[in-house]
Amino acid sequence: MLGIIPDGDDAMTPKSPAKARAASRSDAVRTAKPQAAPAPESKVAQDDVAITALELKEAPLNEAMQAYFKKCEDKIGFVPNVLKAYAFDMAKLETFVALYNDLMLAPSGLSKLEREMIAVAVSSQNRCYYCLVAHGAAVRQLSGDPPLGELMVMNYRAARLSRRHRAMLDFAVKLTVEPWAVEEEDRERLRQAGFSDRDIWDIGAVASFFNMSNRMASAVDMRPNSTYHGQAR
Amino acid sequence: MLGIIPDGDDAMTPKSPAKARAASRSDAVRTAKPQAAPAPESKVAQDDVAITALELKEAPLNEAMQAYFKKCEDKIGFVPNVLKAYAFDMAKLETFVALYNDLMLAPSGLSKLEREMIAVAVSSQNRCYYCLVAHGAAVRQLSGDPPLGELMVMNYRAARLSRRHRAMLDFAVKLTVEPWAVEEEDRERLRQAGFSDRDIWDIGAVASFFNMSNRMASAVDMRPNSTYHGQAR
Amino acid sequence: MLGIIPDGDDAMTPKSPAKARAASRSDAVRTAKPQAAPAPESKVAQDDVAITALELKEAPLNEAMQAYFKKCEDKIGFVPNVLKAYAFDMAKLETFVALYNDLMLAPSGLSKLEREMIAVAVSSQNRCYYCLVAHGAAVRQLSGDPPLGELMVMNYRAARLSRRHRAMLDFAVKLTVEPWAVEEEDRERLRQAGFSDRDIWDIGAVASFFNMSNRMASAVDMRPNSTYHGQAR
Amino acid sequence: MLGIIPDGDDAMTPKSPAKARAASRSDAVRTAKPQAAPAPESKVAQDDVAITALELKEAPLNEAMQAYFKKCEDKIGFVPNVLKAYAFDMAKLETFVALYNDLMLAPSGLSKLEREMIAVAVSSQNRCYYCLVAHGAAVRQLSGDPPLGELMVMNYRAARLSRRHRAMLDFAVKLTVEPWAVEEEDRERLRQAGFSDRDIWDIGAVASFFNMSNRMASAVDMRPNSTYHGQAR
Amino acid sequence: MLGIIPDGDDAMTPKSPAKARAASRSDAVRTAKPQAAPAPESKVAQDDVAITALELKEAPLNEAMQAYFKKCEDKIGFVPNVLKAYAFDMAKLETFVALYNDLMLAPSGLSKLEREMIAVAVSSQNRCYYCLVAHGAAVRQLSGDPPLGELMVMNYRAARLSRRHRAMLDFAVKLTVEPWAVEEEDRERLRQAGFSDRDIWDIGAVASFFNMSNRMASAVDMRPNSTYHGQAR
Amino acid sequence: MLGIIPDGDDAMTPKSPAKARAASRSDAVRTAKPQAAPAPESKVAQDDVAITALELKEAPLNEAMQAYFKKCEDKIGFVPNVLKAYAFDMAKLETFVALYNDLMLAPSGLSKLEREMIAVAVSSQNRCYYCLVAHGAAVRQLSGDPPLGELMVMNYRAARLSRRHRAMLDFAVKLTVEPWAVEEEDRERLRQAGFSDRDIWDIGAVASFFNMSNRMASAVDMRPNSTYHGQAR
Repeated sequence: MLGIIPDGDDAMTPKSPAKARAASRSDAVRTAKPQAAPAPESKVAQDDVAITALELKEAPLNEAMQAYFKKCEDKIGFVPNVLKAYAFDMAKLETFVALYNDLMLAPSGLSKLEREMIAVAVSSQNRCYYCLVAHGAAVRQLSGDPPLGELMVMNYRAARLSRRHRAMLDFAVKLTVEPWAVEEEDRERLRQAGFSDRDIWDIGAVASFFNMSNRMASAVDMRPNSTYHGQAR
Repeated sequence: MLGIIPDGDDAMTPKSPAKARAASRSDAVRTAKPQAAPAPESKVAQDDVAITALELKEAPLNEAMQAYFKKCEDKIGFVPNVLKAYAFDMAKLETFVALYNDLMLAPSGLSKLEREMIAVAVSSQNRCYYCLVAHGAAVRQLSGDPPLGELMVMNYRAARLSRRHRAMLDFAVKLTVEPWAVEEEDRERLRQAGFSDRDIWDIGAVASFFNMSNRMASAVDMRPNSTYHGQAR
Repeated sequence: MLGIIPDGDDAMTPKSPAKARAASRSDAVRTAKPQAAPAPESKVAQDDVAITALELKEAPLNEAMQAYFKKCEDKIGFVPNVLKAYAFDMAKLETFVALYNDLMLAPSGLSKLEREMIAVAVSSQNRCYYCLVAHGAAVRQLSGDPPLGELMVMNYRAARLSRRHRAMLDFAVKLTVEPWAVEEEDRERLRQAGFSDRDIWDIGAVASFFNMSNRMASAVDMRPNSTYHGQAR
Repeated sequence: MLGIIPDGDDAMTPKSPAKARAASRSDAVRTAKPQAAPAPESKVAQDDVAITALELKEAPLNEAMQAYFKKCEDKIGFVPNVLKAYAFDMAKLETFVALYNDLMLAPSGLSKLEREMIAVAVSSQNRCYYCLVAHGAAVRQLSGDPPLGELMVMNYRAARLSRRHRAMLDFAVKLTVEPWAVEEEDRERLRQAGFSDRDIWDIGAVASFFNMSNRMASAVDMRPNSTYHGQAR
Repeated sequence: MLGIIPDGDDAMTPKSPAKARAASRSDAVRTAKPQAAPAPESKVAQDDVAITALELKEAPLNEAMQAYFKKCEDKIGFVPNVLKAYAFDMAKLETFVALYNDLMLAPSGLSKLEREMIAVAVSSQNRCYYCLVAHGAAVRQLSGDPPLGELMVMNYRAARLSRRHRAMLDFAVKLTVEPWAVEEEDRERLRQAGFSDRDIWDIGAVASFFNMSNRMASAVDMRPNSTYHGQAR
Repeated sequence: MLGIIPDGDDAMTPKSPAKARAASRSDAVRTAKPQAAPAPESKVAQDDVAITALELKEAPLNEAMQAYFKKCEDKIGFVPNVLKAYAFDMAKLETFVALYNDLMLAPSGLSKLEREMIAVAVSSQNRCYYCLVAHGAAVRQLSGDPPLGELMVMNYRAARLSRRHRAMLDFAVKLTVEPWAVEEEDRERLRQAGFSDRDIWDIGAVASFFNMSNRMASAVDMRPNSTYHGQAR
């Protein structure tokens, strides 16, 4: 939901996950510079103002979340709209942030780019505007290959993927469109492509998370920050 | 994923959500007594032993999670298998518990029974064995109406529902099967059935959560505790 | 549609089928004791009163059908609602009973339990409330394994089935959801799982029958006897 | 499954249905003359020889069925292949004939043509070769409007139907493709188009029957008599 | 869209295609004699009068199209309705004719019958009344095997096809119903069935063309000439 | 398929369409400057070399097509890959160009932008990589609103469209996914949104054309020019 956001730290996430998350910062991230704002008359500019279709009173940010929002501003130049959408309730905001950071940023056999590729391929099946925009930008940034982001949005089968990536996305997409039919032979195919059982958990977890986030975004018509559109083109 | 489990407390959930979750304990829960164990030769007994299809090394429970597992034993007589499945990683276990408890047990315009009805109707679309068993039991318990649990599993449209409940489940199921087509008129239908914007968030959030949990369970072939089957029949 | 009902006899079925149906009574049936009636205020109690959504004048039972209804009362303690639903027309009632009894109770290479498993797996695809309730109970009774009934209702792929049973249900479900795509290689797969050509006929015939019955039940909103819910739990 | 076949009589159907079936012979049937046989080298000629993909030993016809087959020969010039397919077991053959004749030929608020229109529209959804050929011929014969038969096979929505017929087929087709979604408002739409509750039963029953027959035909690759192709063109 | 129509000539198609189209006239065509007109009160007779649901002013035919319409009258006895439907705009009519003639009549590794088989199998998936009627007639004529036309309309999988034809139609139908999933292994299957890369282009092109024409016909409710119904029965 | 390409002229299109196409050049087109080429090691660079998965010998361009290719180079800086893909056969190339130009560039009640919006919304349903890339770029250019291009690719329902555009795209998408269900009430909805019968033809024709082009591209794995990706971001 966030695109690339800064990793959590002790101030805002439960202690134990925070400790577990030391390593694996090797994925290089192309700096996401704040983009020129869209022209004020543009329709997309509304997306930064009316973030959801619901009228929910924003709650005051608690200390941890204040720090986290500030960190977003400092590192990526804006606060992702999804965080603002959850900000009517500190408990919901914090659990969302903790879950998101654990899945997308914590150490894993999957690189951050791979997790973002799953995010976009899943979101494409669910046609989720928010996630396709935000995580499409993340794939462009992390890969340094803008068309790869487009391919994940449009049809991952048209991409020239390694066997590893094809197996990973086939599993994630099957889990999205017909979860009832996922069976041992699907897991076995992942193992044969070199994934460990722990990796299988992570592929499943990321794909599952976006099946949640895609629907949450659709339920409330969540709108992505307009700045994502131009990132890393 | 859990069926009815005890609410979190300060020992095991992040502080701020814990504080927010004081009120709304008015939903009466019929005590779930431990059932007679299934005959040892029964196939379902395997479900309590081989909880998932993955080989993941169980991590030592940290203090908070030890306390939480003990609370489960004390209050419902067993630890739900989903918790054991996540117990290979304390960070993942804690964030799952925090999210689950916030969604299913924290104060909301939706009663606990209503949230469980959504859980089962969504899980029925995704044909998730774990969630249908565990949350089917929860609907039977919370409603005191066992056939209502069956109806949510089989076809919620065949239930004789109030207009409120029908609208709630129609939204949750549409969000599940064609999230891309959920639009303002769907939200408007909920408002006309008496739901507030905050309620709409909660309906969306519970439905979305089970779209995640259903898929996580399918990804790893998670098996429900055998004791659920006989509960509240 | 009936769950387990007593077999037909000369009094109520056409002569020749009656003769053909001597053998194969080896499937043991756990006695289905009449259950405690649901509390009168329960919604499910309505299911025993308003059996369908249509207003059709009940016809007087002819002698054969009187005997058959009595036999139902004597052996299982109640008359299945489906029989009452057809009782507006003796010709329709008799042909339904004859067809049902031939398919589900007459000698076959398929055990009665196997036929009931097909019934439930097919009814799950069509989300038929009546058949899932009545035949789910039959699977629980005949198997002595209540969770097996649940698995057939929820997702037969999650059951730990023998190769024989998996092949049988795969065929029945494919025939249900995409009958146009059933071809010789599907039949061949059954043969390789040990089924004879005559068995293939019977698998096809039972699956096809429930595709009829499921739709008849949905067409008129047929409601199952409330007593099924608690049977063989 | 039969196309137009002669009505049953006391010799071959259970007594009570036979009695009930006196009236309503007003639907005029254009005589179906035996057609010139297809050239022997034609592939379709195989359809009259290898009627199904199963090897089932034909049983000797009992007296009632001998009489019925003779009646078929006398009145329509051939025995429909579906009857030969069931002829390995007299009980199955008799119950099939009784059910078929009751549904398609017995008195009803639906004309015979209307029942055949339902047969073909349903079979089109299930892409059943046998039923489309045999009952397509029946629609052509009974209506005296050959293109109507084609329209039922190809897309009933393209036909210029009366409101009554459109409502009837909309119900039958919805019951075929998403039976779980048929609800009171669907029945109400039939009532508003002038159908009685008894008519609704019959529409449901005929549509349901062909959902059975279509699948039985697909399960065993049943082939229609080649003579149907040229009938009533 | 046209069924069998006369090939283009220099007068009405762009020069270069015309030149390229000298050879490959070896496919024998059974003469399509004008049929007896349907009875004037028949509904299908309307199809020759109200060709589409749109009110578009017919434009005067230019010289090339006048010649082409005359050629139609001379060779097949009528002008296919699709041509009349496009005749409100000479540019659209001419490009349609040029495209159609190039695809269906120009030299190709596919026989004319094979191209018509693709046309009908694709149109069956899209349930296009116009194309099924017109091209179903063409398959009957070109093959001299009327049931083959029916099989393409009803369910090509039920036909007893050569391996070549089965592979060809499997590709065409997959391209129709899930184009996003067509990949190299699908093309490879065609190659293994003996098709060249140029043949693959042609199979793809004909299948794609009918996915266009089917939708154009549905968009405007285009009606086939009534004479097709009786052709080559 | 082309994105924005120069309109045809007498040199390269059949005479009569060329004449008809004088007017309506009022849609302003933001000049599409040639982009910086992708880094040679990038995977997307392959898309400019291996344009399809088929080995087809390129034919020499005839004079008209030479002129047209030159015009492409002059006006947009490159020859769209789709043209190169068709260049193995001059007749096919010319008819494709004539059809494309007539539909997308000739006078119409639909603006060029509207036609491109239909192109992308349809291609999104079919998940066609080539058309989404090329025509997504066209929507960005013609609208001057890059996020509008993304919305057409991702989920047109999430765009904040005028009633006119929503009706137009609803029709185009329904025609794409269930053409058999398009009926008079769908056309009537377009009329009520202000479209004339001629406009309805054009909406249908553009949507139908892309259902062809999407499939042609998928059939041969056609790859878009890499330069499209960065255009008009």
